[in-house]
Amino acid sequence: MDEFDIETVADPSLRDPILIEGLPGVGHVGKLAAEHLLEEFETTLLRRLYSEHFPPQVTIEDGTTQLACLEFHYVDLTTAATSSEDDESSDDDVATNGSTTPAEQSVPNDLIVLTGDHQAQDPRGHYQLTSAILDVAESFGVERAYTLGGVPTGELIEEYSVIGAASSDALIEELDDAVEFRDNEPAGGIVGVSGLLLGLGERRGFNAACLMGETSGYLVDPKSARAVLEVLESLCAFEVGYDALEERAEEMEEVVSKIREMEQSQAPTEDDLRYIG
Amino acid sequence: MDEFDIETVADPSLRDPILIEGLPGVGHVGKLAAEHLLEEFETTLLRRLYSEHFPPQVTIEDGTTQLACLEFHYVDLTTAATSSEDDESSDDDVATNGSTTPAEQSVPNDLIVLTGDHQAQDPRGHYQLTSAILDVAESFGVERAYTLGGVPTGELIEEYSVIGAASSDALIEELDDAVEFRDNEPAGGIVGVSGLLLGLGERRGFNAACLMGETSGYLVDPKSARAVLEVLESLCAFEVGYDALEERAEEMEEVVSKIREMEQSQAPTEDDLRYIG
Amino acid sequence: MDEFDIETVADPSLRDPILIEGLPGVGHVGKLAAEHLLEEFETTLLRRLYSEHFPPQVTIEDGTTQLACLEFHYVDLTTAATSSEDDESSDDDVATNGSTTPAEQSVPNDLIVLTGDHQAQDPRGHYQLTSAILDVAESFGVERAYTLGGVPTGELIEEYSVIGAASSDALIEELDDAVEFRDNEPAGGIVGVSGLLLGLGERRGFNAACLMGETSGYLVDPKSARAVLEVLESLCAFEVGYDALEERAEEMEEVVSKIREMEQSQAPTEDDLRYIG
Amino acid sequence: MDEFDIETVADPSLRDPILIEGLPGVGHVGKLAAEHLLEEFETTLLRRLYSEHFPPQVTIEDGTTQLACLEFHYVDLTTAATSSEDDESSDDDVATNGSTTPAEQSVPNDLIVLTGDHQAQDPRGHYQLTSAILDVAESFGVERAYTLGGVPTGELIEEYSVIGAASSDALIEELDDAVEFRDNEPAGGIVGVSGLLLGLGERRGFNAACLMGETSGYLVDPKSARAVLEVLESLCAFEVGYDALEERAEEMEEVVSKIREMEQSQAPTEDDLRYIG
Repeated sequence: MDEFDIETVADPSLRDPILIEGLPGVGHVGKLAAEHLLEEFETTLLRRLYSEHFPPQVTIEDGTTQLACLEFHYVDLTTAATSSEDDESSDDDVATNGSTTPAEQSVPNDLIVLTGDHQAQDPRGHYQLTSAILDVAESFGVERAYTLGGVPTGELIEEYSVIGAASSDALIEELDDAVEFRDNEPAGGIVGVSGLLLGLGERRGFNAACLMGETSGYLVDPKSARAVLEVLESLCAFEVGYDALEERAEEMEEVVSKIREMEQSQAPTEDDLRYIG
Repeated sequence: MDEFDIETVADPSLRDPILIEGLPGVGHVGKLAAEHLLEEFETTLLRRLYSEHFPPQVTIEDGTTQLACLEFHYVDLTTAATSSEDDESSDDDVATNGSTTPAEQSVPNDLIVLTGDHQAQDPRGHYQLTSAILDVAESFGVERAYTLGGVPTGELIEEYSVIGAASSDALIEELDDAVEFRDNEPAGGIVGVSGLLLGLGERRGFNAACLMGETSGYLVDPKSARAVLEVLESLCAFEVGYDALEERAEEMEEVVSKIREMEQSQAPTEDDLRYIG
Repeated sequence: MDEFDIETVADPSLRDPILIEGLPGVGHVGKLAAEHLLEEFETTLLRRLYSEHFPPQVTIEDGTTQLACLEFHYVDLTTAATSSEDDESSDDDVATNGSTTPAEQSVPNDLIVLTGDHQAQDPRGHYQLTSAILDVAESFGVERAYTLGGVPTGELIEEYSVIGAASSDALIEELDDAVEFRDNEPAGGIVGVSGLLLGLGERRGFNAACLMGETSGYLVDPKSARAVLEVLESLCAFEVGYDALEERAEEMEEVVSKIREMEQSQAPTEDDLRYIG
Repeated sequence: MDEFDIETVADPSLRDPILIEGLPGVGHVGKLAAEHLLEEFETTLLRRLYSEHFPPQVTIEDGTTQLACLEFHYVDLTTAATSSEDDESSDDDVATNGSTTPAEQSVPNDLIVLTGDHQAQDPRGHYQLTSAILDVAESFGVERAYTLGGVPTGELIEEYSVIGAASSDALIEELDDAVEFRDNEPAGGIVGVSGLLLGLGERRGFNAACLMGETSGYLVDPKSARAVLEVLESLCAFEVGYDALEERAEEMEEVVSKIREMEQSQAPTEDDLRYIG
């Protein structure tokens, strides 16, 4: 195999497509968000990207092996997955927002969503992998990319803010209403594909921004993924339901409360201390 | 040296050869199984594959050095090693199975068995090494490969199941009678050459399946190797004796019972506990 | 991206420029010294050097991302930064030295100062990165380089000596008045870009010397950076104020005295011991 | 820099030169032996081999830097260093052996001795470095190589045996009188340049053997180096004095006896135990 091997699965003509990247990272925020889009809309697998920078591994589904890869999916925003539409529970927030969404005012761009289970295994691999992703994106005429990720706060989150970073000042100005830009945050910069798509993309003329949901950093965080997707909705002029993410969030909250209970049962309570006195 | 250096030792013409891979891995199941074939049949060394992805090392036998390499052997299924045939103990299971083996109904494929002491040292090395192995296999006209390995269960095994994985649904259908395919097992996928021969092989048009013997994961496991070979017998239409593997299995069982004794002498027995009460 | 990507930001014609390197290292001595020059003089950014040998990372300033890079700056020695000139506190040492500086006797060389937050991530990267730096330097006609760094002593420093090393005996002779050369110091040699610019530079005909300020090795050390700069002043015939470095040194000294207090409050004093007796 | 950079320092015409390799390794046996040859005979530096596989480092001598490298030296066996000849102490063993040495019967081959402070930093580097060394050796017409090293026994040595390994059976037969070949020793094979010069050398038509002095593996071992050199004397038909190595061995023995004293003063003696009873 060459360093990269790109498998063409489908090759539709797309309208000014925007690349959305959501690979594994802090709190799996980006990956959860990207996979949620794939579940809620009808999609077409466009490309598989194989690379010797991924772990030397196949995964197994129903006995069949799949070589480690990233996948580029076309997401058809004019559809919504059946499961979501049939869902009886309603998502009020989105419905309300939806009535004033820019989607009604202009023809939205097509979306290409990049997902997968792997990042590269070393610094050079990150650079080369990002270049290969930009090559694929360019071949579809992509000029803009949003990368999705989490920014760790080190403590459990109450308000799910989303912080932005962009490859140029002009892009910050354009996105300023939808996402918050802070002076020097995140302090550690952005590591991996989510960061390099901005850094290397800018060198090649892409407009690229990173949307980072605040998250504790300790747990898979569907609520942070939802916060990021809500920003993306306004940027890309689409609407999506969140029932599946909410269910997942409730599962995680049960985990969190169990952890809290365990902590409390182990730590001495105020009562314990008084009793000693 | 280039990245790979292939030494041609013999170059016979082979009949639709199938590649059997058995390199070091979990429980050394694949390596034991492949080496058992080399011991039980007459073989011809075809190729040595040297690579800078192996440890920078020579081994020594009778004072002569051998550079780290993998070896491709032709295994002549029409022969059986003398030592095995002269062996007085009989292996009833195999004899019984043997009387109805497909070997009598069709001309079996030739086998090329790949063995060695090394895997590559890093992810890129695994990918490149597997590609080099596929190049050699292609040069012999190989279109099908079986990779042999172990799947760790974490506990001592009573019934030695063999799990399969295949590079395509069509191949699963073909092999379904001989080996069990499970939905998502092994959950961690298959790592190393045994997995990549399926993943990369499929990209190049090979039909490849992995046969994984369940094994504790703690010990070298000749019984699991036998279970894997029994599946391979039915797939490749040959018969082989297992005396040598059984002897090795008995040695391992002595090790296991010693470990169990040690554990029991350290842990309090039920009697000990009653005495306390 | 290729292994290296060099962005041309400005391309002035320079007079026999000397390369000054100050990247992260022991006590951040070299980096502090190089950055002090950028703060005290007017500068022009000449080149950005991107490389897949740097961490796969962007940093963020005011929401905009900057891909990991090194920067080559032209430093105009005929200027001094406003902030420094307006500074009321005077730096007597420098003023005194300044009155007899060689700057008045000859036209000084232009300076190109190399700074950044990164070194390469592995041995090969250090070699390739240094070669790329020498390529840029050569393109400006550089024939001489001074690399700045710290040499760890393992104890807090009272007298800030500066040790030199040079790529040739002829250069030692030339620099012998300004900097001290010792027989086998530093015993561990010089690791990273600061060392390789001499080693690889010499192979390409550069005259290169390394100026190493003694430093404890435990703390960022602005005083050691000043000592190194004072040697550089005499070598390159310029004058610079040290108020900013002195402020930073005072901050560090507060840190040091706090550490000493903590040590003293934890260790038993002579009085404690007498009291026990 | 390219992956390798070979500096030609001198280019004399040599008579059927044999390559002797002695790089850092177990007990520094090979390095001590090779450096002893450089000290005892007149030598000419032939080549310096620089490589990005070495640590990114310069060493410093008298203030001048030297880039990490290996050095190929011609050793003139018709000379002996003045210091050794003037030495009043006599080395009886060598003198006795010397009177019947094959040196008097045939014109000996010239020797090229390879020394240095570094091995490569990773597996691929070892392979590439060894290939580069073989390239240099070939350019001088070398057809035979002896690599020198230590084999760890894990305990302090009384009798300093030397074990051999060779790239072919024919070579074993030729060397069998001078050095002992054992069935499967060393069990772990030979790692690094000393092993690969045999493994890769054999692929390129070199006759190569490794001479391994038994050594504890815990300490620099000049006595083991002497044992190896005594084998080399008979193989290459030269004589050398050992005063310098003996001095170094005495220093090491003082270290060893201090360690033994410390161990004895800490462990309870038989007397201590009786006293308790």
